[in-house]
Amino acid sequence: MIPVMERIDLNADVGESFGPYVIGNDERMFRHVTSANIACGSHGGDPSVMRRTVRLAVDRGVSPGAHPGYADLMGFGRRDIAMDLQELEDLVVYQIGALAGMAAAEGTRLNHVKPHGALYNRAARDRPLADAIARAVRAVDAGLILFGGSGSCLVEAGDALGLQTAAEVFADRAYRPDGSLAPRREAGAVITDPAAVAERALRLVQSGEVATVTGEVIELRRDTICLHGDTPGAGDIAATLRARLEAAGIRLAPVGSAGRQGDGGTSP
Amino acid sequence: MIPVMERIDLNADVGESFGPYVIGNDERMFRHVTSANIACGSHGGDPSVMRRTVRLAVDRGVSPGAHPGYADLMGFGRRDIAMDLQELEDLVVYQIGALAGMAAAEGTRLNHVKPHGALYNRAARDRPLADAIARAVRAVDAGLILFGGSGSCLVEAGDALGLQTAAEVFADRAYRPDGSLAPRREAGAVITDPAAVAERALRLVQSGEVATVTGEVIELRRDTICLHGDTPGAGDIAATLRARLEAAGIRLAPVGSAGRQGDGGTSP
Amino acid sequence: MIPVMERIDLNADVGESFGPYVIGNDERMFRHVTSANIACGSHGGDPSVMRRTVRLAVDRGVSPGAHPGYADLMGFGRRDIAMDLQELEDLVVYQIGALAGMAAAEGTRLNHVKPHGALYNRAARDRPLADAIARAVRAVDAGLILFGGSGSCLVEAGDALGLQTAAEVFADRAYRPDGSLAPRREAGAVITDPAAVAERALRLVQSGEVATVTGEVIELRRDTICLHGDTPGAGDIAATLRARLEAAGIRLAPVGSAGRQGDGGTSP
Amino acid sequence: MIPVMERIDLNADVGESFGPYVIGNDERMFRHVTSANIACGSHGGDPSVMRRTVRLAVDRGVSPGAHPGYADLMGFGRRDIAMDLQELEDLVVYQIGALAGMAAAEGTRLNHVKPHGALYNRAARDRPLADAIARAVRAVDAGLILFGGSGSCLVEAGDALGLQTAAEVFADRAYRPDGSLAPRREAGAVITDPAAVAERALRLVQSGEVATVTGEVIELRRDTICLHGDTPGAGDIAATLRARLEAAGIRLAPVGSAGRQGDGGTSP
Repeated sequence: MIPVMERIDLNADVGESFGPYVIGNDERMFRHVTSANIACGSHGGDPSVMRRTVRLAVDRGVSPGAHPGYADLMGFGRRDIAMDLQELEDLVVYQIGALAGMAAAEGTRLNHVKPHGALYNRAARDRPLADAIARAVRAVDAGLILFGGSGSCLVEAGDALGLQTAAEVFADRAYRPDGSLAPRREAGAVITDPAAVAERALRLVQSGEVATVTGEVIELRRDTICLHGDTPGAGDIAATLRARLEAAGIRLAPVGSAGRQGDGGTSP
Repeated sequence: MIPVMERIDLNADVGESFGPYVIGNDERMFRHVTSANIACGSHGGDPSVMRRTVRLAVDRGVSPGAHPGYADLMGFGRRDIAMDLQELEDLVVYQIGALAGMAAAEGTRLNHVKPHGALYNRAARDRPLADAIARAVRAVDAGLILFGGSGSCLVEAGDALGLQTAAEVFADRAYRPDGSLAPRREAGAVITDPAAVAERALRLVQSGEVATVTGEVIELRRDTICLHGDTPGAGDIAATLRARLEAAGIRLAPVGSAGRQGDGGTSP
Repeated sequence: MIPVMERIDLNADVGESFGPYVIGNDERMFRHVTSANIACGSHGGDPSVMRRTVRLAVDRGVSPGAHPGYADLMGFGRRDIAMDLQELEDLVVYQIGALAGMAAAEGTRLNHVKPHGALYNRAARDRPLADAIARAVRAVDAGLILFGGSGSCLVEAGDALGLQTAAEVFADRAYRPDGSLAPRREAGAVITDPAAVAERALRLVQSGEVATVTGEVIELRRDTICLHGDTPGAGDIAATLRARLEAAGIRLAPVGSAGRQGDGGTSP
Repeated sequence: MIPVMERIDLNADVGESFGPYVIGNDERMFRHVTSANIACGSHGGDPSVMRRTVRLAVDRGVSPGAHPGYADLMGFGRRDIAMDLQELEDLVVYQIGALAGMAAAEGTRLNHVKPHGALYNRAARDRPLADAIARAVRAVDAGLILFGGSGSCLVEAGDALGLQTAAEVFADRAYRPDGSLAPRREAGAVITDPAAVAERALRLVQSGEVATVTGEVIELRRDTICLHGDTPGAGDIAATLRARLEAAGIRLAPVGSAGRQGDGGTSP
């Protein structure tokens, strides 16, 4: 049985602007989240954007993490690239290292790693690729927490390597009975009503339960909730969700915020 | 007066290949040097080349360092780019961080930083730019040793920020009386006879003295000698120079190899 | 004496978005201009953005031209890069060719070339660099019209090579008595009142006259007026300026729109 | 029945160097081929390499063509990228256009297009992707000849759009009975003996016949033979093959060299 939780992490992708090109609204998302997934200069971000975003995280008390993606700015890391797994592992080491350098420059340390876009999606179902990502994380810093979709190969890969992992759930996306997300193109796959999203989030946190597209209720391991920053109404949804959780007495805190000092964290 | 030295560091630029594109002969240079300046994926190198090169350094007992350059693969970092100094500082942090990630993945740590190409040349005479580089090095890891041309603004900038610095000299290049290098296009600017280069190196190490293009002898601070890997005869020169120094009883060791444990190193 | 004009071209930079990164408001600018300077994938733009922008130009009856810049997406072509002049010439040929391919694919032809950002600014005062750009234009298609700042080296370079040239003026920027633009950072350098900009534009078109920062009036050759798309109030300024010119009976038409059929165009 | 041929085209990939990074031996290959597939700055090549390579083709009397690939320099265009087909079409238009600009600058015109690496391989069996490439070719210049593997989807796609096509065969690779190439990793898949390769080439040209890995003989449409430039012994193979064909009275000429003037060319 999945235990009752009294705390949860809220994360969002940030730092994806590039040079003069602005994407997302990082200032707004930093008001709502406890963990920031910061792009590392491959699918988005550049050295100066990376550094300013780490500083913003420090200033707002948000836990910084790396958000590595395919090296494909034009495709924004959303296109699969058929890479050799060793090359992929090295690419992830590179990106985490670069962001860790920024963190050091701003007097902080990275707390977690969450792959981006096509890399995240593929790591959910491709175990060898997930293993390569987990190896990269461990190679740079075995204390980093690996974020992956709840029930994904990526979480399994991290667990298998002895990394602390965090299972991510989505309160604004419909689930299928097998625990996978319904594709965005399907009717009802994306939930846009802030109150509805907030209720789903609360239920997920309190019981791990979510109603699927078939009406069936499933249970999901959940350590962190992903807040989208790039959709219409994203600000409203994030504010409403956060307020609802706080009103219900849920403590919002980064994954592993106690764990790195030795309590074992949220990972089984 | 410049003190007699009984040890010196030999360094070379390596890891500048990219994907299928091979440049230089790293295997050969690793036989001769004590410090390796490893490209960081901007002017040359890619994540997998970086990792393999760090591993090669570990395997050969060569001290690894970062070799950041302008983000200009086509120009190989040899073209000035009019960057904002904060952007430049961030770019250097990024590259050092990325390579430090590779070092961690291979169970080692970086020892030094030496800028590449146009960045090195400009940092020799542009103090604000040199300061930006020194700030970047200190921001990532204040224990890193900053390599710069002997007498350059870069060494001054590092010294001013409290970094350990290493003054680099060239045994195969002619100096002018002011301590600057004679431009390559001038007759006699590049010395190609291995025995002559080796004698210049020995004199530099033992006394700090070098005969200039005018015949005048000047003294240079010298902590490390640069060995070029990309010129015809580079292998012969490196082998001859190393053998000559060893025959004269000079100990070859990375800069700061004792210094990081507390002896104050080679920097004043 | 500068002749009275009854027609003028209005141009704007467009097509500078990249992958998911949107910059500028091209739809709006296409309502006001007669010539579009389309980014060519180096400082901005990507193949699909280029093609869609050419199609938009065709659909709106706007004359398409190439807007080549330094190959520096992160710096948006606003940073000087110390390139060899032959490399620069080849880079400009490359960009014009790529956009000409898009034009062919959309059933049209390019009409003009206007360099971007740092390349435009440097070509205003660096004649050898301006010559390299002019050679590139002539090499790809000697029928292309070269746009440069009024009084710039670039226009001189184009004229010297026998290209048709167009002298560009700015109605929203203050001029100095020598015909150069006052730097943006100076007070009064940028005129933001739409009515004031429109009056300056009308006077420029009708008489070639513009009042400088010292109050002195100078005359400028003017074949095209640049409309900025990326400033606050850009839409208002463009609409007001266009309406004012039309109300005064000025015909708005692309440079050389008759000239390519043989009337000698607007170039002296 | 496949007709006896008295002429054939020999092609090779060239112009894949980038900045200071040299790959292949273009000078050597230009001595042997009648058609050059010139990289267009995406998987390899840069504007200056492209221009020099076009000039070399002109100087040597070799017919220039475009060799577009995925925009992936690090992967050298050998990794599949999951692109939207419209984006892929635009990418191919972009590359052909850029090289056509270089051709114009050197006073010549492109004759053909042959996709590179992963794009070529995928276009052999993925008809919608092959159609996108064929549309790109036709969009830029319907007179360009499309090169594809003999029996591939790419040739079918070109034929279906009314393009002139050329079926490419390999004299140094083993075929399977279905007309596909045996994978390189299989024993005997690559033929390295120059005399054996030359005999296979002659038989292919004269009769269209090739012995497969099973011993069965199949017939292939063949308009051009690919010569590899990047393998050990490549120069010997190319020289031997060319000499053998010439000794047998085969005329070596670019595909369509008469065809563009109206004789219907070599395509059925």
